[in-house]
Amino acid sequence: MTPEEFRRYGKQVVDWVAGYLSTIEDRPVRSPVAPGEVRDRLPAHPPERGEPVEDLLGDLDRVIMPGITHWQHPDFFAYFPANASGPAILGDLLSSGLGVQGMVWATSPACTELETVVVDWLAELLGLPAEFRTDGTGGGVIQDSASSAALVALLAALHRASGGKIRDHGVADTYRMYVSTETHSSLQRAGRIAGLGGGNVRAVPVDPVTFAMDVGELRRMIAGDVAAGAVPALVCATIGTTSTTAIDPVAEIGALCREAGVWLHVDAAYAGSAAVCPELRWINDGVAEYADSYATNPHKWLLTNFDCGVLWVRDRRPMIDALSILPEYLRNTATESGEVIDYRDWQVPLGRRFRALKLWSVIRWYGAEGLRAHIRTCVELAARFARLIDADDGFELHPGHPFGLVCFRPRWPSSVPDPNAETLAVMERLNASGELFLSHTKANGHVLLRLAVGSPATRAEHVEAAYRRIAAACQERR
Amino acid sequence: MTPEEFRRYGKQVVDWVAGYLSTIEDRPVRSPVAPGEVRDRLPAHPPERGEPVEDLLGDLDRVIMPGITHWQHPDFFAYFPANASGPAILGDLLSSGLGVQGMVWATSPACTELETVVVDWLAELLGLPAEFRTDGTGGGVIQDSASSAALVALLAALHRASGGKIRDHGVADTYRMYVSTETHSSLQRAGRIAGLGGGNVRAVPVDPVTFAMDVGELRRMIAGDVAAGAVPALVCATIGTTSTTAIDPVAEIGALCREAGVWLHVDAAYAGSAAVCPELRWINDGVAEYADSYATNPHKWLLTNFDCGVLWVRDRRPMIDALSILPEYLRNTATESGEVIDYRDWQVPLGRRFRALKLWSVIRWYGAEGLRAHIRTCVELAARFARLIDADDGFELHPGHPFGLVCFRPRWPSSVPDPNAETLAVMERLNASGELFLSHTKANGHVLLRLAVGSPATRAEHVEAAYRRIAAACQERR
Repeated sequence: MTPEEFRRYGKQVVDWVAGYLSTIEDRPVRSPVAPGEVRDRLPAHPPERGEPVEDLLGDLDRVIMPGITHWQHPDFFAYFPANASGPAILGDLLSSGLGVQGMVWATSPACTELETVVVDWLAELLGLPAEFRTDGTGGGVIQDSASSAALVALLAALHRASGGKIRDHGVADTYRMYVSTETHSSLQRAGRIAGLGGGNVRAVPVDPVTFAMDVGELRRMIAGDVAAGAVPALVCATIGTTSTTAIDPVAEIGALCREAGVWLHVDAAYAGSAAVCPELRWINDGVAEYADSYATNPHKWLLTNFDCGVLWVRDRRPMIDALSILPEYLRNTATESGEVIDYRDWQVPLGRRFRALKLWSVIRWYGAEGLRAHIRTCVELAARFARLIDADDGFELHPGHPFGLVCFRPRWPSSVPDPNAETLAVMERLNASGELFLSHTKANGHVLLRLAVGSPATRAEHVEAAYRRIAAACQERR
Repeated sequence: MTPEEFRRYGKQVVDWVAGYLSTIEDRPVRSPVAPGEVRDRLPAHPPERGEPVEDLLGDLDRVIMPGITHWQHPDFFAYFPANASGPAILGDLLSSGLGVQGMVWATSPACTELETVVVDWLAELLGLPAEFRTDGTGGGVIQDSASSAALVALLAALHRASGGKIRDHGVADTYRMYVSTETHSSLQRAGRIAGLGGGNVRAVPVDPVTFAMDVGELRRMIAGDVAAGAVPALVCATIGTTSTTAIDPVAEIGALCREAGVWLHVDAAYAGSAAVCPELRWINDGVAEYADSYATNPHKWLLTNFDCGVLWVRDRRPMIDALSILPEYLRNTATESGEVIDYRDWQVPLGRRFRALKLWSVIRWYGAEGLRAHIRTCVELAARFARLIDADDGFELHPGHPFGLVCFRPRWPSSVPDPNAETLAVMERLNASGELFLSHTKANGHVLLRLAVGSPATRAEHVEAAYRRIAAACQERR
C-alpha cells in the first residue's frame, strides 16, 4: 500500500470510526451472536489474491460488527470500563504509523524518553510519592496490563527476598506471597507463573463488611510461615478490588511489611486513576510511606485505550536484576554508557510498542482538569445510581461505592428457592435485551450485580434508564 | 473529543502519517540524539488545561521526531525488521476505534472468533500441521511477542511434565529446560520468570560451522539429568536464530523429545514467516511430526505492525490448565457452555486488544501471493548483498543466509591489534552517518555485522548503496 493509498483509505477508516462513535448508542450493547456465528460467516481459507479495503470494511459491517460487545457504549456497565477516547486513538495511530520498536533506548530514543516523561507526569497527576519518579532510584513503565505489572513486581520481590539467588537457582519451595480472598486472580496467576505454585500464595481473609484485608490475620500468617522456615516475599494490597472496589488498609499492611522485610505491591488497577482528584487522593494513604511497587491502568478509567497499564517501583534495581540478560546482538554504546533506560528490562516481553504516545496525547488533550472532570462525572453518576437503589425497597445496596462501581442485589420474596439464580437470570435477561450490560460478583454468598460507570459517553439519563430497566426486570419476576 | 472532532483530527493524523511514510527516506535512519535530549525538551509537568491537537503534532515534529530511529526506513538493516504496512495500520486503527477488550469470548465474540480464523489462516499459509488448527485439540493465539509465547509454552510444558503438580506446588528444584548457546535470550528469561532459575536452563553447544544445536550433546545432557533425578520439561529448537539465522535440526531434536517425553517448542519468531513460500517450507521439516508448540511473529517479517506474535500448540489442554483461574466476576454462560474459546487462558495478561483485525487486514490486502512476493523480494535482496560481499576480498561472508539476514565481517590487516573493535568502530561510524543502520553479533569470537533486509520499502539500490558505504568505510580504516 503506497503512502497515497494509505492517505485515501486512512481517511475512509477515520470516517468509519467517527461514524461508529457517533451512532454507538443505536446498537445493542451486548452482541447477540451465538458461539461460532461469526466464525461461520468468515471464509475458511485465506485469499490467494489481495482484496480491496472496501471489501474489508464491508465485511467489518456485515460479519464483525454483529459480534461486537460495545465497550464504549454509554450503557456498558459491566466489569470495569476500558476507556477509549479520541486523543488516545490518535496517539495509537501515530504509534502504528511510526512503527518503531522501543525495546532499548538505542532503538528509538524518543520512545523511551517520552515514556519516562509521561509516567513521571502521571505520578504527579496521581500524587504518587517522589520515590516513584525516574530521577531517583525508582521509576515507572508502561505494561500491557496490571497482570503483567504484578508479575514483574513479584519477580523483583522474589529477587530481593532471595538475595538474588533465584536468578540462577529458581524459587525452590521457599517463598510465599500474600493476597486477600478478594485480590484479583492475576496475583494468584502471577504466583503460579513465577513457579511458587498456588499453594504458596496465601489468601488472607477479609473483613465481612468492608471486604478489606484482615491485617491481624496477615500478621499471623507471615509469622507462621517464618517460623516454619519459609521466606515471605510479597504482599499485595488492593485499592479498589475488582469485585466490589474494597480498599485494603495499605498503611497498616505496609508497616507490617516494613517490619518483616516483605515487598509491598499495591494493585490500584482500576481505582488508582481516581487519585487525579485531590478529594479522592486519600485512597493512596500509606503508599508514599510503604509501597515498593504500585500499578494502575490508564486503559481502565483514564481515557487511554487498551493496552496501557503503568507500573511504578521505588527501587528499580531488583526488577532489572531479575529480568535483564544482555546478549551480544543487543549490546550498544548507549546501554553501556549507563545513561539511558532500556525498558525491555522492566517487562516480560522484549519488544515494545510506542504506547507512551497515546498517554501523552490523552494528558495533553484533556489536561489535568479534563481528567479530573471525567473521574468526577463517573463518581457522581455512580452516586446518583446508588441513591436510586438505596431508596428502593426492592434492592439492597452493598455498602461503599467511592468510585464508579455500585454493587447491589434485588430482594426476592422468601418463597424464591434460589435468590442467587434469580438475580443471575434477571441479569441475563437484561444483558440479552441489548439495552444495557451489567456483570456480577459474589460476596458473603450473595450474588451482587455490578454497575460500573466509566464511559465518557455515559450521562445521567443512561444511569437513570439503567435503574428503571433493572427495577422493572426484577418486578416482573417477583 | 466529539466524533466530529475525531473525524477532523483523525484525517490530520492520517495526512501526517502518509506524509511521514512518503518522506521517510529523507531522514537519518538512526536518531542522532544524545541521552536525555528528548526528555529535556519536554515540559517537566503535565498541563493543567487541555491543549489542541495542533500543538501535539507540532511537538511531535519538533521534539519527538529527532529522537526516532526509523524502523520502516528502507536503509534500516539492524536487528530483525519490525514490519509495518498500510493495511496493518488501518487494522490497528479499527481496533483502537472499536475499543473492545476481548479477554473472554463473551466480552466481544468477534474479537475471539476472528482471531481463531486468522491464526488458522496463517497456519495454512505457513503450511503448519493440521494439529495446530483450532478445530482439533490444538490452536493458535496472538501474543505480544515470541518471549511471551515461549513463556506460555514453558508453563504448559512444566504443567505436563509435573502431571499438573506445579500448579499448586511450584517448580521446586526438579525441572530442566534445554536451549542452544545460540537460542534467543528470551528463553533463558522465560526459565527465570517461571522460577526454574538460570542454572536449570541448559545451554547445548552448537556446531561451529552451522551454529545448529548439537543433538548428540542434547541427548547426553537429558540422559545425565534424568539419571540425576531431574525432569526434563522442554527443549527449544530455533528456526532462524537471532544472531545468524541458524536452523536447529528440528526432526532429530523432535525424535529425541518424543522418546524422552519432553515438550518441543519451536521458536521461528523471525524466519517462520518465510514458510508462506513453498520453496522455503523445508525450514519447518520436523515441525508437523514433533512440535508441541510453534511461534512466529507476523510483526517481524509479515507486514503486521508490532505487537503481533502467534503461538500455536498441538494440545491446548496443559496450557489452559496451567493458566486458567475463574473468579466469580468472569463467570458467564458462554464460558460454562464449553463452546467458546477464552483466550485469556492462553496468555500472561488478562486483558486483550483486538489484534486479529490487523492480521486480517494484512492477509486480505496482500493475499497469499502478496505475502510471498514480500518474502521473496527480501530473500533476493539479501542474496544480492551476499554476492557483493562474497566477491569482495575485503570481507568474509558468514555461511548460510536463506532468509533476509546476511552476516559478514571486514578483513583487517594483521597489523590491526583488535579486529573486533575495528569492526564495531566501522559500524558505529556508519550508523552515526544516518545513511543506514546495521547491528552486530558475535560468532566463534568474531564480531559479525548483520544486514537484515525486511522493510517493504527496501529496493536493490538500497542494498547496493549499503554495500558501497560499508566497503568505503572499511577501506578508510585499513
